[in-house]
Amino acid sequence: LFNKTFFDKANGFKRPLLEKRVIPKSIVSFGKDNSKFQKIGANHVSKCDFPIILNSGDSIILDFGDHNVGYCNIALNFVGQITDSPLKLRFTFGEFPYEIITSPESYNGTLGNGWLQYEDRAMAFLPAVCRLDRRYSFRYLKIDRLDTAKYTVKIDDLFCDCCSAVEMSSCVEMNIPDALLEKIDHIAVKTLKECEQDVFEDGPKRDRRLWIGDLRLQALTDMVTFKNIDLIKRCLYLFAACTMENDVVAPCVFPDSPPYVDNWGFIDYSLFFVSCLYDYVQYSKDMDILKELYLIAQKQVEYVSRNIFGSKETIKNGGFFIDWCPDLDKEVAGIGVYLYVLEQFAQLTEHLSRDAKWIYSEKERIKEILFSFYSENEGLFITASGQVSWHSQIWAILSGTVDYEDSIQLLQNIKAFKNAKTIHTPYMMHFYIEALFMLNLQDEAIEVIKEYWGKMCDAGFDCFPEVFNPEDDIESPYGAAQINSACHAWSCTPAYWIRRYYSKNL
Amino acid sequence: LFNKTFFDKANGFKRPLLEKRVIPKSIVSFGKDNSKFQKIGANHVSKCDFPIILNSGDSIILDFGDHNVGYCNIALNFVGQITDSPLKLRFTFGEFPYEIITSPESYNGTLGNGWLQYEDRAMAFLPAVCRLDRRYSFRYLKIDRLDTAKYTVKIDDLFCDCCSAVEMSSCVEMNIPDALLEKIDHIAVKTLKECEQDVFEDGPKRDRRLWIGDLRLQALTDMVTFKNIDLIKRCLYLFAACTMENDVVAPCVFPDSPPYVDNWGFIDYSLFFVSCLYDYVQYSKDMDILKELYLIAQKQVEYVSRNIFGSKETIKNGGFFIDWCPDLDKEVAGIGVYLYVLEQFAQLTEHLSRDAKWIYSEKERIKEILFSFYSENEGLFITASGQVSWHSQIWAILSGTVDYEDSIQLLQNIKAFKNAKTIHTPYMMHFYIEALFMLNLQDEAIEVIKEYWGKMCDAGFDCFPEVFNPEDDIESPYGAAQINSACHAWSCTPAYWIRRYYSKNL
Repeated sequence: LFNKTFFDKANGFKRPLLEKRVIPKSIVSFGKDNSKFQKIGANHVSKCDFPIILNSGDSIILDFGDHNVGYCNIALNFVGQITDSPLKLRFTFGEFPYEIITSPESYNGTLGNGWLQYEDRAMAFLPAVCRLDRRYSFRYLKIDRLDTAKYTVKIDDLFCDCCSAVEMSSCVEMNIPDALLEKIDHIAVKTLKECEQDVFEDGPKRDRRLWIGDLRLQALTDMVTFKNIDLIKRCLYLFAACTMENDVVAPCVFPDSPPYVDNWGFIDYSLFFVSCLYDYVQYSKDMDILKELYLIAQKQVEYVSRNIFGSKETIKNGGFFIDWCPDLDKEVAGIGVYLYVLEQFAQLTEHLSRDAKWIYSEKERIKEILFSFYSENEGLFITASGQVSWHSQIWAILSGTVDYEDSIQLLQNIKAFKNAKTIHTPYMMHFYIEALFMLNLQDEAIEVIKEYWGKMCDAGFDCFPEVFNPEDDIESPYGAAQINSACHAWSCTPAYWIRRYYSKNL
Repeated sequence: LFNKTFFDKANGFKRPLLEKRVIPKSIVSFGKDNSKFQKIGANHVSKCDFPIILNSGDSIILDFGDHNVGYCNIALNFVGQITDSPLKLRFTFGEFPYEIITSPESYNGTLGNGWLQYEDRAMAFLPAVCRLDRRYSFRYLKIDRLDTAKYTVKIDDLFCDCCSAVEMSSCVEMNIPDALLEKIDHIAVKTLKECEQDVFEDGPKRDRRLWIGDLRLQALTDMVTFKNIDLIKRCLYLFAACTMENDVVAPCVFPDSPPYVDNWGFIDYSLFFVSCLYDYVQYSKDMDILKELYLIAQKQVEYVSRNIFGSKETIKNGGFFIDWCPDLDKEVAGIGVYLYVLEQFAQLTEHLSRDAKWIYSEKERIKEILFSFYSENEGLFITASGQVSWHSQIWAILSGTVDYEDSIQLLQNIKAFKNAKTIHTPYMMHFYIEALFMLNLQDEAIEVIKEYWGKMCDAGFDCFPEVFNPEDDIESPYGAAQINSACHAWSCTPAYWIRRYYSKNL
């Protein structure tokens, strides 16, 4: 179901990436340190001065001092005795120390081990200049000399050609009169920058593709920071270009020519195509793109209405993402997402002066389903299985169908409720913040940001990660924390909220 | 001690390599088979038809049907579900099955493990076309799919761009009226071809450099097969261009710009510069090159005369190669080599109408030392420690200072002697054949070739190897048979002897 017109438009917004040469700052060692995140401390050994000598069996860890995305280059030579058999080096890249110290052999995660960031390279002749073809996402680079030969080698030079669609200096300047919030904003902006590549990537360490849940949060934040509008349009057209069966928008697109989509879906992600379009039209007032893509948005709503929101059973099995929270019952949150999107879709429809009546009557129908999950006893939305979660309350609030006082009460009740399912990702945390802002609890929202993202700062992250649980620092949706992404776009939204907060207040 | 004039001349004889595309013939499996060389049999599984399906954990062995030297290319795609994490493949190349089935981790040889012929390659995106940068020497290619991802991959195409300075069809045709000798000649010529690259390599699997002991035998054989005379001249000039301290010719040259030599020597190898020049002048009658390089030849003789052949002690510690035979006492063989070279040097001197008297008197002096090792008791040359070896007798004969009847007697006596040190390499075997030819025992020489190289044919070699001991098929000079070279130039000389034999007799 590939639409060449949209794909050509998407490629019309493709821009060359910017490159910047980055050199390692120091040589470090990693050691057990229970006071540090993941219980590993990075200890300064020396400045990184070339040449660096490497004998067989040697291992060094270079610290670039900040997060980078790019291509590594290395210049090597021998010292004294000539290279009489090939040199073999292992390059292991890590966004965080745990990633470096965990051996590839021990990996047992659910994602393909191909994402582990290492490779071996042999060089038969020295001097040699070598560029690693694979793009890595890293702060640290460990180099192990694997060959058993007796000659001595030196690294004469090593640098990384880092790439991004944007540069930090092009970010909209903002006066943030709070040191922690300023730091959080800076890291959030850096996170977004690292993820702006040929498309908005979810995280540069893995995937190398465009996810719609991430795109939405990235685009929102980009509109108040880099304003890389061409990339937003490119991504909207990419999703429009390659829908799945029944014109359902795919959760992710592999953007290379020809573009591909996976053969499975997240229903909330498909619906968020409407939100992405809504946000962009709000920002740009671009009626042409709305006219072009409205039909795709409409098809998401129609498909979901017909196929998912028929019965409680189909809703329960609807296939929502919502959050990486284990064993989460998602039907209430899913209904909230649908109502949230229906409201945006109604507004887009009215922008085009089309009849939105059926949308409002659909909202009424769905609202009734939502409220059937409300339990007077607990004063909370509870799923069919009796599960209480933050997700259900947050999305009920964001649905726009719970009135103000009841929404405030929902928040109080969920905070008081013991053993509720909690938020596991910065992604879901964004929607909590959104609910707080919606309820005019901006100050509380900002406190939540300082608390949650502030702890990420304390943990030493250079960018904000995919998952962050202060209670369990090796939590992973994939059963292996070393494969987690430590630079993940869906955690960049503090920059959006902080800027929004101060724009209004100042 | 780098001579730019000679180096420029060497590069003036550099020629582009010829490329030929080769495809795998079949898929095979390896299994224990005590009747086979190294106790491994290769069993036909199927023809090699593309596409070949690869799932995670799959392993296939491709058989190219013959020995190749070159660069592997592979075209890959996915089947059904898209590649959602990088594909990781291990490519293991082997000249013989033992090399493929031995794990890199178990390697414990004395040569750097960088020569083990394998590499891992990750591909983030499919379809992909990938060319391995390293040149491999192989008949078999095992491909292991290392990643744990669930998608299915197919190999759409795989071929090798094979390279050599010559092609089989340009070899001088020869009618050899004996099937086994014809086969031996063919394999010998193929062996030589595989080793003719940018320089005469000793074996294309390792080293990637020019060794003088190998060069001499290669050049002799090339002159009656490919007549790739430019390459011979290139190599003569390369050795002349980069001598070691005291103008001693290095045992090997790394030919890349700038060329390097190692900081150690083999005295017999340095002396063989004289033999290489002698052979080439015999062949070409090229007096210009003789005039140019005579001084280098002279310096080898002078250095050796002064520094090695002063006393029995300095001879014993002279640093001769002779053969890979363990614990071999080399002084008698070394003296034989020197006398052999002195005779050639005297002839070169006379070609230039220079005074050779001092050379003949040097020969007399050395002959006396040689004969002091002769033991009337055994009728054999015996080293100071009392060791009896084939090497001592062969080089005594080749010295040209033992008369005919005594030489015949030496051969009879060494054959009858129990526990003599025996020949361990095809290289040393060449000098045995030379001794037999010298003594007009051509028929016996041909029988030795049929016996020794015939057994290599029986063992299934596509080319002739570096070491071959029918009694111990995992013998290795490096403590690890998988690193042995199964295509080694110094074993190509049967083509020289067979062609010489039939040229004379027909």
